[in-house]
Amino acid sequence: MADGDHAMDAAGLEAFLAAEFPQVAGQFAVEGLTAEGAVLRLKVTEGHLRPGGTVSGPNIFALADLAVYCAILARIGPQALTVTTSAAIDFMRKPAAGVDLIGEARLLKLGRVLAVGDVLIRSEGSAAVAARASVTYSIPPAR
Amino acid sequence: MADGDHAMDAAGLEAFLAAEFPQVAGQFAVEGLTAEGAVLRLKVTEGHLRPGGTVSGPNIFALADLAVYCAILARIGPQALTVTTSAAIDFMRKPAAGVDLIGEARLLKLGRVLAVGDVLIRSEGSAAVAARASVTYSIPPAR
Amino acid sequence: MADGDHAMDAAGLEAFLAAEFPQVAGQFAVEGLTAEGAVLRLKVTEGHLRPGGTVSGPNIFALADLAVYCAILARIGPQALTVTTSAAIDFMRKPAAGVDLIGEARLLKLGRVLAVGDVLIRSEGSAAVAARASVTYSIPPAR
Amino acid sequence: MADGDHAMDAAGLEAFLAAEFPQVAGQFAVEGLTAEGAVLRLKVTEGHLRPGGTVSGPNIFALADLAVYCAILARIGPQALTVTTSAAIDFMRKPAAGVDLIGEARLLKLGRVLAVGDVLIRSEGSAAVAARASVTYSIPPAR
Repeated sequence: MADGDHAMDAAGLEAFLAAEFPQVAGQFAVEGLTAEGAVLRLKVTEGHLRPGGTVSGPNIFALADLAVYCAILARIGPQALTVTTSAAIDFMRKPAAGVDLIGEARLLKLGRVLAVGDVLIRSEGSAAVAARASVTYSIPPAR
Repeated sequence: MADGDHAMDAAGLEAFLAAEFPQVAGQFAVEGLTAEGAVLRLKVTEGHLRPGGTVSGPNIFALADLAVYCAILARIGPQALTVTTSAAIDFMRKPAAGVDLIGEARLLKLGRVLAVGDVLIRSEGSAAVAARASVTYSIPPAR
Repeated sequence: MADGDHAMDAAGLEAFLAAEFPQVAGQFAVEGLTAEGAVLRLKVTEGHLRPGGTVSGPNIFALADLAVYCAILARIGPQALTVTTSAAIDFMRKPAAGVDLIGEARLLKLGRVLAVGDVLIRSEGSAAVAARASVTYSIPPAR
Repeated sequence: MADGDHAMDAAGLEAFLAAEFPQVAGQFAVEGLTAEGAVLRLKVTEGHLRPGGTVSGPNIFALADLAVYCAILARIGPQALTVTTSAAIDFMRKPAAGVDLIGEARLLKLGRVLAVGDVLIRSEGSAAVAARASVTYSIPPAR
């Protein structure tokens, strides 16, 4: 997807998430926007772990889901009702203990009705991919 | 998958989850085991919601993931390090507001290394499927 | 999904496939419609096999894709331009050699824009599930 | 995944496919290997099309599946019994009519038991992504 003007920047996305998703926004940070999408951080705490000391699958999923959401909203603006319709995720390596997770999303399609992105998730400072996901969102018609 | 002896029952699974997943166990209940798998409940609270008043995708994912996990452990016993390797999920209908979600998992394969199950998720009391997921787990070799 | 009137029956679907998909229709048979969806057969020949004597993944995918397509068209009628938007498939057991594959699709959602179904695929005469898939189709607006 | 020595090159892979997959090898070409994976071509003919003049989903799936297979075999050598265990695919844009499809696979994990890759598929000469897929293979133990 070619670069283009962004409808929202990283600070605008963070403010939007804090207002619309108060339950979870504090766990995440919008690290930045790229030509292709968005980079999100999961601030890993004890509450995100599962047996074996690794970040639980649902928390990794949440990071992937949110990274694609931000990549879309960066283009179309603050449409809270943009909702996930499907996702596929592969968990490939145990994330490093006690390290934040970084999710890099790229938007592959931004259609009238559906948007599709994929995400690579790594422990901060690691080159190895811990998980990958592809996520499809439905964009509300009142756009 | 034919019925068979269970290595753990619903109460045993709940005790296991409470011990191993103290961060999240209180949000879920093991409703029961079936010949094919397990039935789990997500006790929906304000913290699970997202804009529009619907249960967020990551919470639905967590229910699906846990339902298949319980379906597997019911057969192989308390192997906490059984970990998700991949999942695919479709979000099809907005769950009803203020109602728990029920996930029915069936085990489709229980191999030496990999186990696969799928899940239908509905709002309690509703026949319509809100989401479906298929989840693959890797079973630790020390089995 | 509750039972309902079908817009096309098995013979109508076969005639439609023969007219619209002449490249592949001869490889498949519509075994019948059910309250929930459709049952399709892949007539396995030498050309469908891969090393190890098993049916190749793309042929199993084709059966899953077509079974959901027929489950949808049985409801909405002959809309050839209904197209797959996404699919997830798990290959769980090697299909039996020299035996047709049977795919049972059930429709989980039939929306205005998207339809979702899942499929269990077995070697004919076998109870074990060889593969499962979930498939999403986009329905053309001119409906 | 860091670059490294390849166990097979493009010509070796083509010879291997011709020997082991005679039913389909002629439809594909191994365009080359990259540091991250492999690039494959589907030589599109009339037989690959579906209504609307676009390449059918199962043919796109076959390209994705084969591209990841080649990316794996390039590393581990000619292990024909390496088999797909799961795949997720998104069809995003109608491929251009009468143009070959190019699939670029990158290997994200090459473990002892499982390997995971993803693929971007484009019509030759087009920057837009027509489809994306992620594919997991099981590697035979006799390795």
